[in-house]
Amino acid sequence: MKFQYCMPTRIFSGEHCLAENGAALKHLGTKALIVTGARSAKANGSLDDALKALAANGQAYSIYDRVMSNPTIACAYEGASEARLNGCDFVLAIGGGSPMDAGKAMALLAAQEKPVPPSEIFTTAYERALPVAAVPTTAGTGSEVTQYAILTNDAAETKTSLANPLLFPRIAFLDAAYLRGLKKTVTVNTAVDALSHAVEGMLSVRASSVSDALAKESIALITTCIGASGLSDTSGETRWKLLCASTLAGMVIANTGTTAVHAMGYSLTYYKNIDHGKANGLLLARFLAFTERTRKERIAEILSCMHLKTVEEFARLLDGLLGKREKLSAAEIKHYAEKACKAANIANSLVRPEKDDLLEVLQSSLG
Amino acid sequence: MKFQYCMPTRIFSGEHCLAENGAALKHLGTKALIVTGARSAKANGSLDDALKALAANGQAYSIYDRVMSNPTIACAYEGASEARLNGCDFVLAIGGGSPMDAGKAMALLAAQEKPVPPSEIFTTAYERALPVAAVPTTAGTGSEVTQYAILTNDAAETKTSLANPLLFPRIAFLDAAYLRGLKKTVTVNTAVDALSHAVEGMLSVRASSVSDALAKESIALITTCIGASGLSDTSGETRWKLLCASTLAGMVIANTGTTAVHAMGYSLTYYKNIDHGKANGLLLARFLAFTERTRKERIAEILSCMHLKTVEEFARLLDGLLGKREKLSAAEIKHYAEKACKAANIANSLVRPEKDDLLEVLQSSLG
Repeated sequence: MKFQYCMPTRIFSGEHCLAENGAALKHLGTKALIVTGARSAKANGSLDDALKALAANGQAYSIYDRVMSNPTIACAYEGASEARLNGCDFVLAIGGGSPMDAGKAMALLAAQEKPVPPSEIFTTAYERALPVAAVPTTAGTGSEVTQYAILTNDAAETKTSLANPLLFPRIAFLDAAYLRGLKKTVTVNTAVDALSHAVEGMLSVRASSVSDALAKESIALITTCIGASGLSDTSGETRWKLLCASTLAGMVIANTGTTAVHAMGYSLTYYKNIDHGKANGLLLARFLAFTERTRKERIAEILSCMHLKTVEEFARLLDGLLGKREKLSAAEIKHYAEKACKAANIANSLVRPEKDDLLEVLQSSLG
Repeated sequence: MKFQYCMPTRIFSGEHCLAENGAALKHLGTKALIVTGARSAKANGSLDDALKALAANGQAYSIYDRVMSNPTIACAYEGASEARLNGCDFVLAIGGGSPMDAGKAMALLAAQEKPVPPSEIFTTAYERALPVAAVPTTAGTGSEVTQYAILTNDAAETKTSLANPLLFPRIAFLDAAYLRGLKKTVTVNTAVDALSHAVEGMLSVRASSVSDALAKESIALITTCIGASGLSDTSGETRWKLLCASTLAGMVIANTGTTAVHAMGYSLTYYKNIDHGKANGLLLARFLAFTERTRKERIAEILSCMHLKTVEEFARLLDGLLGKREKLSAAEIKHYAEKACKAANIANSLVRPEKDDLLEVLQSSLG
């Protein structure tokens, strides 16, 4: 029963929750840096709702709307610089994982008196950050309730996590209406990301009764959204379930971290441009099979949340969701296994894989 | 999917967690008011561990060890006054629900510049409190992770809750070793209190996927501790499960509030001196039966966490735990039902009982 747990973000969930609870933003500051991607926050209504809430509070804002997928370190510095130039004292991040993670990194960098050199962004002992509020508009990352900001790290040729309790958003607003226009592939890949978070949380050495409770509910919710033809129902109720599940799974990884699956998945995204959620999904079943050899009962617990009996059934279900698998060369597999061996999150894995095990998971998943 | 969720307390759990993570107390202040009852914190080792942690941090302390069961408003004022006289800038509350609740109330009162008259203690809009750390030494209240401090309110002849987000402990240390010497009746009554919190959380209008996840895990954990002869196993593993379950249930009620069960239970404690946990337990089965008439599926969900099929089985299980039931007169039943009607937590009940319903629950439980 040795564990730690913390997740201090205040969550408001429900249709129009930003309109109804926007006053909660008042305490965060006088001027927001709104951080979004180029389009979706404008199209899905979330930006409008945010602007109305800020106006009602008498809060000013600047908009930084140039966050790309898999945001770069340069993007984080650019946004932080805009925050300082414009006198923003809090960040309102709206979007999928990319704008939320970028916004959190900007909140950290903008609050430093002494500039942090980009080469030290992941190693600096930060002591302050601007407060952050987050509005997810996809259901996958869980970034609205985590202390992580994951950036593309070209020096290390991977994605690297800024992890700091200062990065927990003070407030998260969950409104599934913003998910209405998502493309099918985005819905599927982000749902698989959330599933991966919840499953990996149960396969972490840092799992606890608290994280297990949240993970099981998350897995069960996602399962109810998957029909015979995959994730084809895109009703309002399904969107709510997926959004709730991704937040639950975010609460899980905030406390358990991710595992070898994410460690390997980052290479698939960095080198092959495979979407983050799909990258994890492609590896998940074979990693379950690897873990099952020594921890059969734990895998059974995960499968039972999905009303499944075997890892093979789990693999078929994910195959049905993800479609055609990318193929890797033997050299790529070797390279990615070697990189994953050095990743910090490998150490979270309940059954810690050696290089040969990673080779096998990668080979059987994508060889 | 309309809900709110917040539980900012940082939890450290595990044997010797206070010794291993005592440094986390450093940020709370320079001098602690240690709040305990007269005996148990000294006997179970928790006070010693706390003193060592404070010493290692170079933090001073005063001890207030006069908290009684069902602490009074006078007790809260006395402790707050000691905190101010001795220059304490944080509270370290150690014990069951009574010392933790009293310590939280003291932290609130001690932080006020302008004295709050006792008649306004429950109605004042507080804006500051001393930071609190909590060490539970029973497994029932969950006060280590809630924003509530429940005090005996003689003016209203009941127990009344001070509820304020400022009261969330900053840190909770969970070490089941401190539960080792608990009397059987205390173990049972506190476990039933935790069960009641989790079950009532599922019967609250404020329940959500997040609170449900935590409640179901709590109920399931408690169920695994109940054997054919009740809660007779007092192994280390059982103590851990019960402590974890009570913290999970605390996280639940921090977000859902309690329901009509607690509203009625307070009278049993105030007028008949029935232990708080037992008071709720005596009423729980009949309240489930009442709710089942209109929300059959919800009750089935609760029962399934316990591998039970009917409310009657639930009633028998609780009877086995609680033993002989107290009896109330018709006048008492009428009086308690009338009082409960006016309690704030009635409004949380998923199926809101009218006075006649409360009469029936009280009559069938204790008539």
